[in-house]
Amino acid sequence: MKRRYSDIIKLIRDHKNDNDILELLSNYHENDIADIISLLTTEERKKIYKLFGFQKVAEVFAYFEEPEKYLDEISIENAASIISFMDSDDAVEILEKLDTKKKSEIVKRLDADAVADVKMLLSYDEEEIGRYMTTNYVCIKKGLSVRQAMRELVRQAGDNDNIMTIYVEDESERFAGAIDLKDLIIARENDDLEEIVIHSYPYVTDHELLDNCIENIVDYSEDSIPVLSEDKRLLGVITSEDIVDIVDDEMGEDYAKLAGLTAEEDLKETTVQSMKKRLPWLVILLFLGVLVSSVVGMFESVVAVLPIVICFQSLVLDMAGNVGTQSLAVTIRVLMDENLTGRQKLFLLVKEMKVGLVNGGILGIMALTLLGAYIHFFKGYGWIGAFAISGCVGISLLAAMVISSMVGTVIPMFFHKIKIDPAVASGPLITTVNDLVAVVTYYGLAYIFLIQL
Amino acid sequence: MKRRYSDIIKLIRDHKNDNDILELLSNYHENDIADIISLLTTEERKKIYKLFGFQKVAEVFAYFEEPEKYLDEISIENAASIISFMDSDDAVEILEKLDTKKKSEIVKRLDADAVADVKMLLSYDEEEIGRYMTTNYVCIKKGLSVRQAMRELVRQAGDNDNIMTIYVEDESERFAGAIDLKDLIIARENDDLEEIVIHSYPYVTDHELLDNCIENIVDYSEDSIPVLSEDKRLLGVITSEDIVDIVDDEMGEDYAKLAGLTAEEDLKETTVQSMKKRLPWLVILLFLGVLVSSVVGMFESVVAVLPIVICFQSLVLDMAGNVGTQSLAVTIRVLMDENLTGRQKLFLLVKEMKVGLVNGGILGIMALTLLGAYIHFFKGYGWIGAFAISGCVGISLLAAMVISSMVGTVIPMFFHKIKIDPAVASGPLITTVNDLVAVVTYYGLAYIFLIQL
Repeated sequence: MKRRYSDIIKLIRDHKNDNDILELLSNYHENDIADIISLLTTEERKKIYKLFGFQKVAEVFAYFEEPEKYLDEISIENAASIISFMDSDDAVEILEKLDTKKKSEIVKRLDADAVADVKMLLSYDEEEIGRYMTTNYVCIKKGLSVRQAMRELVRQAGDNDNIMTIYVEDESERFAGAIDLKDLIIARENDDLEEIVIHSYPYVTDHELLDNCIENIVDYSEDSIPVLSEDKRLLGVITSEDIVDIVDDEMGEDYAKLAGLTAEEDLKETTVQSMKKRLPWLVILLFLGVLVSSVVGMFESVVAVLPIVICFQSLVLDMAGNVGTQSLAVTIRVLMDENLTGRQKLFLLVKEMKVGLVNGGILGIMALTLLGAYIHFFKGYGWIGAFAISGCVGISLLAAMVISSMVGTVIPMFFHKIKIDPAVASGPLITTVNDLVAVVTYYGLAYIFLIQL
Repeated sequence: MKRRYSDIIKLIRDHKNDNDILELLSNYHENDIADIISLLTTEERKKIYKLFGFQKVAEVFAYFEEPEKYLDEISIENAASIISFMDSDDAVEILEKLDTKKKSEIVKRLDADAVADVKMLLSYDEEEIGRYMTTNYVCIKKGLSVRQAMRELVRQAGDNDNIMTIYVEDESERFAGAIDLKDLIIARENDDLEEIVIHSYPYVTDHELLDNCIENIVDYSEDSIPVLSEDKRLLGVITSEDIVDIVDDEMGEDYAKLAGLTAEEDLKETTVQSMKKRLPWLVILLFLGVLVSSVVGMFESVVAVLPIVICFQSLVLDMAGNVGTQSLAVTIRVLMDENLTGRQKLFLLVKEMKVGLVNGGILGIMALTLLGAYIHFFKGYGWIGAFAISGCVGISLLAAMVISSMVGTVIPMFFHKIKIDPAVASGPLITTVNDLVAVVTYYGLAYIFLIQL
């Protein structure tokens, strides 16, 4: 699907006639036009902006990867005119990327409608759904006829892209339902419009948190979902394109957090920015690592007598950590997707521990036989001594894996309960708790079985 | 946004009149109706299916979480009729959940159109975009007038939901462009339809791999993107709702893989299913862990002489692992989002190593001072001995972090190059390589500085 634009760029440069260029480009999707324009010179870009007019340029700007770069090339007045024509959520996204001075210069010059919308969106927190809505939708009054509704649609469609669902307001400007455009199109002129209005249409309220409502919105798989105020006035809509972006971002954030980054990174970031995103977690882990070290230190005497036990410390700790991370990942996903009852949580916990037990049993037996042979043949221990040591490793693996599964399930549930994002908070704690459990189990067993007995 | 349906269920049970029930439910979104129906008894459900008719029931079925459960309640004939009315991609999704016998029974009874579509979708691999398309779209012939196009739209809109973009075919049934419904609605009757056709509309071809084209499709943020055959015939469309599902799934898969699961899990899976998804990675890690253990074993002599060094092994290994995972996560995301040039890859590698160097330096100095004091006060070593040991830890941390950053960047790039999914393949290898590097660096330094000197 990747396209090559060199031919088109050549055509643009050859065609000196403005109308030809305009017609040529009108055959392309705005996303392609954005890509093409980004390959031209500043002067050529300015010429095309002029040909297009502000509205069309605004559509193209929504597709630029770094729109702020192109805003810098044009005057503040033109930038304001372009942003005035953009969807409110896209406008806010671009404005947020500019420095404070430039942002306020542009906001000052936005047209009245755009200013109101942009200010409304900026009044929401980044975590609230209101921040992501667009004010670009079609809304009609209750009680129109099919014909009047169709005429109203045609009138509003010029300015508003999201026409698949037509929203209905009552006399007191409260949200009263929605009409699927398809139903309006196939309705006959003398049908009753009320018949095709869905009165209990799903909606979200503006201050709902993204995390809490996004899965629900996805479930409806609609082209747009209305965002209402507390008193049921229609403020904007969340389109399916917004949903794609939000889901993509949310998952990216989770993915980053699981890997111990405070936020998703990309190629354009500087070393210092990346460093800042990674250092906090690493410093926490360093301190927690010292804690684990001091516990290992308590078993120094075991190691002094039987240095071979040290060989398998990393094995037991790594396996406990891996199992804990698996349980953590599953629990975080389940917590995010569903509203669990206490009973379901208990069920998940029991299931995780069962999985830990079965996998721990299998790996424990594998470790017992594999390591027993290894110690006998490569380390020169007798069969009994070798299997005593590998038995310790096997039992430690089993115990550590069951406990790690439990810890990996309970800790994210606890963080979820106290409203802390489990993805970011659980990682370090789980690693440490699992390390401690594994160290104590392993060296404890070695002390009791190998040294005491 | 979560709704309570008890009132509605009570209303349904009280209203014995079919028309009242039908009117009541017609005010709800299909997703809500699916939720409501799942709370009723089997008999009540069957009654509502009858009231709705197959087409409406098919719409509701697309929203069930476990549609196969409800298919079991009805006759094979009715199931086939319902599935015949579903979007082809939804139909395939349900059919894939049934056992082979039931699936073939139903496929045998599907109506002719549905069979052809379902068979076509099933002919694609799960990784190919063709598998996810729907054949439910509006397509008109080239050369119609605005009025004819509008009439054709009204005719086809009854059967096809995705009307936001109207596709245009030429005389030889080749894809010739697309019309935005909005443009058609605001067009005047005697405008030339050709004027509003976008001839170079973006498209994908049916055998393109999901991984390769999904980011591109997202970039266009369209309601639907056409899927063409090699010879440019229109086979189906990918809707924005499909894109939400695909992105959600893809990211979930990656997230799962990073945590060492072979696929995403949910609450409904049995212990055995979960066990199977987790065991493969754990067994690989066990074998790699034995490898690391045998390398640690080579340094047994160091530990025998100076047991305190063992305390900090877990610290150095864990930190190396953490840094490696961070680089891995960033590299996988960057590789997925963009087509990198060799130069950009080198840039990313250098950047990752710089981040590793800076963070390693900071953490190394912290470890040096923190552990030096700890060893002096708690372990009873003199200041010089304490700082010699903590110095070893600090230098090992720095070295291990730089090398882990490099390994965490190079290995996923290598897997990407040889077309193996880096998310699933890199994890175990990176953990092991980092462990080995960290062990050799740490014990090597300890051997040279603390024992030899």
